[in-house]
Amino acid sequence: MTILGIDPGTATTGYGLVRENASGQPEAVAYGVITTPAGLPMPERLVLIYQELKQIILLHRPASSAVEKLFFHRNVTTAIAVGQARGVVLLALAEAGISVFEYTPLEVKQAAVGYGNAEKKQVQMMMKALLNLEDIPRPDDAADALAIAFCHLNSLRFRSLT
Amino acid sequence: MTILGIDPGTATTGYGLVRENASGQPEAVAYGVITTPAGLPMPERLVLIYQELKQIILLHRPASSAVEKLFFHRNVTTAIAVGQARGVVLLALAEAGISVFEYTPLEVKQAAVGYGNAEKKQVQMMMKALLNLEDIPRPDDAADALAIAFCHLNSLRFRSLT
Repeated sequence: MTILGIDPGTATTGYGLVRENASGQPEAVAYGVITTPAGLPMPERLVLIYQELKQIILLHRPASSAVEKLFFHRNVTTAIAVGQARGVVLLALAEAGISVFEYTPLEVKQAAVGYGNAEKKQVQMMMKALLNLEDIPRPDDAADALAIAFCHLNSLRFRSLT
Repeated sequence: MTILGIDPGTATTGYGLVRENASGQPEAVAYGVITTPAGLPMPERLVLIYQELKQIILLHRPASSAVEKLFFHRNVTTAIAVGQARGVVLLALAEAGISVFEYTPLEVKQAAVGYGNAEKKQVQMMMKALLNLEDIPRPDDAADALAIAFCHLNSLRFRSLT
């Protein structure tokens, strides 16, 4: 079962796909970012995110997905922009019939590092170790997306044990 | 030339279509709201908004469109929700090749009533008068969408005169 984690943004949307391998260990299937040119009008940037995400979904056919739960954004203009990207991401997932789960940043860090106040760098190093990657996943948005996917995979594994 | 105005929201998305009639007077073509059930998960609500808006676009084939420019939202959770609805609205418009313009609430009120501090009720009454409607357009989100469309139509007419 492949899980897709997404960190939406209008300039950069990170994605990460993880699954449990034959030995029951989590592993990264793919990760990366969808970037859109800053000069492009917002509606066209959203089309790019939507279309590229649909390609990723078609290619990897994830069974479930997860995004970060957004509570607070210092800058409200940023919150609206993130919301717009998040909107087309949720749309693409729902249209593909993929369930979407939400986790707080605290839950993601808790799953990745073991405590909720972990720094970004620690999350990235743990993703490298836990997913058996050769390097720290880059850029940041891709690493964040992997951590979200990892958190959801963990949560699903835990539920199946109980 | 038909203009589509949209007031996006996850629960209620208002839309209004206006055009210039043969005598050069603005008139309402259609208006209404797309509503989504509160109990439905957000991804499915966004699918409903996206699909219904695409139907409206197919039916009326607007030449251009306008949405309100969002600067400030007291509640950041609301800003993200509005952003999500706005994202799928901009996506549907861009996919249909329809240009999207943005106007501030001040510009919309200025166009509809003549001054930027007008109250919501005044905007609605002016829409009834200016678009020659039998009743005040309801609900509020539909009236707002008509005002946004009217503002854009006015702006295009003004530009064509200069």
